[in-house]
Amino acid sequence: MSEFQFDEHPHRRYNPLTESWVLVSPHRTKRPWQGQVEKSAEDKRPSYDPTCYLCPTNTRSNGEKNPDYENVYVFTNDFSALIHDTPAGQVSDGELFQAESESGICKVICFSPRHDLTIPEMEAKDIRRVVDAWCQEYEGLGTDPKINHVQIFENKGFVMGCSNPHPHGQIWAQYSIPDEPYKKQIAQKKYYDRHGRTLLSDYLTKELEKKERILFEHEHFVALIPFWAVWPYEAMIIPKRPMASILEMTSAERDGLAEAYRQLTIIYDNLFEVSFPYSAGIHQAPTDGDVHEEWHWHFVFLPPLLRSATVKKFMVGYEMLANPQRDITPEQSAQRLRELPREHYKK
Amino acid sequence: MSEFQFDEHPHRRYNPLTESWVLVSPHRTKRPWQGQVEKSAEDKRPSYDPTCYLCPTNTRSNGEKNPDYENVYVFTNDFSALIHDTPAGQVSDGELFQAESESGICKVICFSPRHDLTIPEMEAKDIRRVVDAWCQEYEGLGTDPKINHVQIFENKGFVMGCSNPHPHGQIWAQYSIPDEPYKKQIAQKKYYDRHGRTLLSDYLTKELEKKERILFEHEHFVALIPFWAVWPYEAMIIPKRPMASILEMTSAERDGLAEAYRQLTIIYDNLFEVSFPYSAGIHQAPTDGDVHEEWHWHFVFLPPLLRSATVKKFMVGYEMLANPQRDITPEQSAQRLRELPREHYKK
Ligand SMILES: O=P(O)(O)O[C@H]1O[C@H](CO)[C@@H](O)[C@H](O)[C@H]1O
Ligand SMILES: O=P(O)(O)O[C@H]1O[C@H](CO)[C@@H](O)[C@H](O)[C@H]1O
Repeated sequence: MSEFQFDEHPHRRYNPLTESWVLVSPHRTKRPWQGQVEKSAEDKRPSYDPTCYLCPTNTRSNGEKNPDYENVYVFTNDFSALIHDTPAGQVSDGELFQAESESGICKVICFSPRHDLTIPEMEAKDIRRVVDAWCQEYEGLGTDPKINHVQIFENKGFVMGCSNPHPHGQIWAQYSIPDEPYKKQIAQKKYYDRHGRTLLSDYLTKELEKKERILFEHEHFVALIPFWAVWPYEAMIIPKRPMASILEMTSAERDGLAEAYRQLTIIYDNLFEVSFPYSAGIHQAPTDGDVHEEWHWHFVFLPPLLRSATVKKFMVGYEMLANPQRDITPEQSAQRLRELPREHYKK
Repeated sequence: MSEFQFDEHPHRRYNPLTESWVLVSPHRTKRPWQGQVEKSAEDKRPSYDPTCYLCPTNTRSNGEKNPDYENVYVFTNDFSALIHDTPAGQVSDGELFQAESESGICKVICFSPRHDLTIPEMEAKDIRRVVDAWCQEYEGLGTDPKINHVQIFENKGFVMGCSNPHPHGQIWAQYSIPDEPYKKQIAQKKYYDRHGRTLLSDYLTKELEKKERILFEHEHFVALIPFWAVWPYEAMIIPKRPMASILEMTSAERDGLAEAYRQLTIIYDNLFEVSFPYSAGIHQAPTDGDVHEEWHWHFVFLPPLLRSATVKKFMVGYEMLANPQRDITPEQSAQRLRELPREHYKK
């Protein structure tokens, strides 16, 4: 029997942030693919689309007209999943039937008036305005006593259920702390209480020594494929300085975040020379009024593509019922991404 | 302010089996859909396809030839994610880098030699053979000291990453207990220790009183939309008698399971008059040699479709980063399914 090797043999890896496992099957990429392929994103779009409900000056489905905005534009989602004035109430018929009313606000952030751009095609100074808008929203929403958690995210690409290619992100802010960030809070708290340092600062120190999962290191931020990545090219942007939320960033750090966001998404686009779909979002301290020294905020990227511009990884059957599973190792993914040009392929 | 109402206002529901939450936004179905649509499953297939690697007498990609099987056929997956003789080993560089070798076996179960059938189009007596094969595999695999968990599941439809429409399921058996069933084990154990009854027998009793989420009640099995369902038409088949695993079924119960599986999938197909995609699987006691009185096995169905044969619910952005979210209430889904004919629409 040969010796156990990471890049060859099936194994499980532990995610200390969410306290969960992923099954890694490195040998499995040999599998032929006869299943569904995705449409690639249409590449040519006009800079203004009269039928797009996010373009400047157009009328949205609720009759409101978008202003002739020049960089970033934020408005309340016309089809919000959360509503601010939900009447309070709950159902609790024993421990097996528990429900409680939830209130919140859903917002849309147009990243640019230009219908034909995406983050990797925007200039860093314009992405900086997106970062500023996030900070402003996180702060503003967070002061509302009925808002204890602010989830900033971006769904990009039709394959991610994004219904409009106009560059935009979303913010869902709500009373309760949702499950994923809550898990991370618990784990980070335990770690912080034990070590007096954030989990991610210790993790980052080690990763910077090991180097094999690093995509790039800038002055203020590091992008890497986490050791416990679930999606084939899942990545994280982590600030070097432990900060509970994006509000703690200096102006230079805000610029740094804009640049890291741009750089990572350029690398993604270059992988298959296609506008790379993903869901991405920021995990940070809840806005519940407590001090959260344990929190080290980070920006998570969850892209579905596996083999090509059209073949994605399906998280189905085994993954839904048992445990996430991946077919290439995080180290292989990091290496592949690291070797790509840092300039956008369209340039 | 109006009073809090379940079928109108956003709320969170608690899943006591996995100890997690789902956000329910009943008002949100009004949202127009401009995003990706799925191809419907091709409806006409030959009963034998010479290019299908699951049809009888055909040669698979590893050169092996399928026998001329007459009902159910089980073989080891040619591209297994788990391998039986994985060398033992682990990586543990502090608490942040933990990995361990994993061994196991992946099998494929052809449900029928007929390429053109699906479970809802098969006869109950032939589905019974599938149930028998599951029991045999669970028992056989479970006696292996290196196999502590056996996950039986079915991915159906291209939209679920199923690469071949030939009716088949899979079994992934392994050393470790994966996260999802492990969560359910913890919660069921706590419940059983407190009450001396299984969580699901108490749940079933209440649901049978309430009736609003029941799809059908047979002699031995109940099909329902769980109170905490995540997917729009997520359902469970639960045996009335508490049993830790499918091995405890009497012959009449095996027939009952085959019939419930058939009935539920017929209802699903009738919803949009299309071969309804889903991932489904059985959660039951691990095969770790312990007695698991807390376990009440059940069969879970996770179908992605939401509005029509081609528009699915995307679990992306908010759902991946925060918390699952659904747009119609489980009660509305149950009512809609309950009203459908019990005979397959193709008949
Ligand atoms: O084994 P299959 O059907 O080729 O593959 C499918 O099911 C597997 C188990 O759920 C998943 O890991 C794959 O992503 C999916 O495409
Ligand atoms: O809000 P959108 O972009 O219309 O919708 C998309 O993102 C939401 C938030 O992740 C999801 O709930 C929807 O399923 C998805 O289609």
